[in-house]
Amino acid sequence: MSTLQLCSDHTVDKRLSTVERRYLALIERALRRSVRTREPESVYEPARYILDAGGKRMRPMLVMLSCAAVGGDVRKAADAAAALEILHTFTLVHDDIMDNAPSRRGRATIHTQWNTNVAILVGDELLALAYRSLLRTEHKKIKRVVELFTDGVVEVCEGQGFDKEYESRHDVSFDDYRLMITKKTARLLAVSCEIGGILGGTTEQRCRAFRKFGEHIGRAFQIQDDLLDIIADEKRFGKSIGGDIREGKKTYLLLAAHECTTGNDRVLIRRVIEEKGVPNTLVPAIKEIFERCGIIEKTRVAIRDECRRGMRQLNTLPATPGREMLAQYAHQLAGRTF
Amino acid sequence: MSTLQLCSDHTVDKRLSTVERRYLALIERALRRSVRTREPESVYEPARYILDAGGKRMRPMLVMLSCAAVGGDVRKAADAAAALEILHTFTLVHDDIMDNAPSRRGRATIHTQWNTNVAILVGDELLALAYRSLLRTEHKKIKRVVELFTDGVVEVCEGQGFDKEYESRHDVSFDDYRLMITKKTARLLAVSCEIGGILGGTTEQRCRAFRKFGEHIGRAFQIQDDLLDIIADEKRFGKSIGGDIREGKKTYLLLAAHECTTGNDRVLIRRVIEEKGVPNTLVPAIKEIFERCGIIEKTRVAIRDECRRGMRQLNTLPATPGREMLAQYAHQLAGRTF
Repeated sequence: MSTLQLCSDHTVDKRLSTVERRYLALIERALRRSVRTREPESVYEPARYILDAGGKRMRPMLVMLSCAAVGGDVRKAADAAAALEILHTFTLVHDDIMDNAPSRRGRATIHTQWNTNVAILVGDELLALAYRSLLRTEHKKIKRVVELFTDGVVEVCEGQGFDKEYESRHDVSFDDYRLMITKKTARLLAVSCEIGGILGGTTEQRCRAFRKFGEHIGRAFQIQDDLLDIIADEKRFGKSIGGDIREGKKTYLLLAAHECTTGNDRVLIRRVIEEKGVPNTLVPAIKEIFERCGIIEKTRVAIRDECRRGMRQLNTLPATPGREMLAQYAHQLAGRTF
Repeated sequence: MSTLQLCSDHTVDKRLSTVERRYLALIERALRRSVRTREPESVYEPARYILDAGGKRMRPMLVMLSCAAVGGDVRKAADAAAALEILHTFTLVHDDIMDNAPSRRGRATIHTQWNTNVAILVGDELLALAYRSLLRTEHKKIKRVVELFTDGVVEVCEGQGFDKEYESRHDVSFDDYRLMITKKTARLLAVSCEIGGILGGTTEQRCRAFRKFGEHIGRAFQIQDDLLDIIADEKRFGKSIGGDIREGKKTYLLLAAHECTTGNDRVLIRRVIEEKGVPNTLVPAIKEIFERCGIIEKTRVAIRDECRRGMRQLNTLPATPGREMLAQYAHQLAGRTF
């Protein structure tokens, strides 16, 4: 509980934002180094365009904070941190083609701004550049780091595969959902934390704690993302409310509602699932079901539970100011509505 | 010259085909190990489908033969060899989307049999699985091996980028062409040979010779591929004559013809370039220009020249039966018409 209490500490907040700025500068420099090549322009121009578009840089930040939490030198982790961001960007570029998404991070997606062929090739190149950045890291356990990274790539693809399969399945269970978000979202956060720990020079046992911490925080973050689709402040998060419902996405909320509801409520929830989405006019009715049946509250509990379990893992590590900062960062990530 | 003479030796031929069968068995086993996972089915089923479709297994064979040429244990190189094949297959899956190709290795392409989204994701997964297979290799120089492999991925993407850019450019030079085929085709052959050499335990200097050998053979192979579009026996190679002309591809032959021709010949050659291809009815006229202006012969000379330069590199290595087999294999690859 001590970590959770510290999370609200104003001093940690302030120190974290100073540290964040310093880490971000290192990360951005490593990112720029990765896409310095000029030709072929059709590959490197879109690659720079998408990497420049910003984003939270959550994964590289987790690498740096985890490394620092065990007393490591973050400068030596910057290339690996950048690798995680480039890998994440690769998944976005390809997922956006598959999802027909017009924009990302406030810019037209690559397949919209250029075309699908360019987006496929740029995604591929980004994945290769991610490995190249990772391999700039000098560390005696580099093989283990590259293995973990590769497991991350394999699983993130598997997660996307499950996600796409679920689009046309009516019988997606909570277990299916958990497996999918673990692979598609949580694994890369887990890998980020574990690689940070390894590069920071900590023990294998502590690396496992880092991994579990990242996985819990990752699931919390994804369930939170599902929740924000319903309760977010549209202006603040730049997303229109109910997008997942309109698309019939099997979110935590929809699956929970499917389990809890009866009668007409259940008919409507089944309609979202079976018709792969419903018109915008039905979004308020669904939202009302979520509220009335306690789905919103159940979702908040699930997020809090994942956060708590993550923090419990983190608390097995030696208490350092770096650990508190990592805890605070994770709390901000997974607790955007609290 | 001794290697070139030995190439026609019946004994080497026979020994090579025995060794090829043994290596192929090791490669196929490593490939199967890479795609054993069952779920998500939408990813692993197409992955197995494309890896099962066969192909020459040229890149893994070069890894094994190079390893053996310096007295290495090929069993320890099989996972790295398979990695090169999986990487190559990834490029085919994505290139086939970009080129709108309906079939490959006698089967419907993945984007035709399933759809484009599946093909994008399966390609991504294959690249990740290629790294996973590579990382199964136990070797003290594994970091160097993964770096070389990564350089190969980066360059093969760059090569594809140049190739796509050239489709809409009218001023492609011989230097441009050479750069493109070096990256798109030759680099992976060079990487295969160099990785084989490293895993075989040879010196850095010899690894450089392996790399240069692979690069020359790779360019010879690609120029040969351009030539086969014009002179191949359709039944034997399963390609219809003149496809590159119909598509206006900037092949070695077209660029050479553009440089050598004058008058009406040049007008027709420019038409192929500027109109991005010509109707099938014009293929015989173009072929006649290629023959009359000595383009076919010039192309054969270029192939022979690359082969010779490759063999010169190979001959800097100690003369072993393994080296002769590698020479013979390369000769078969790049000399399909001789």
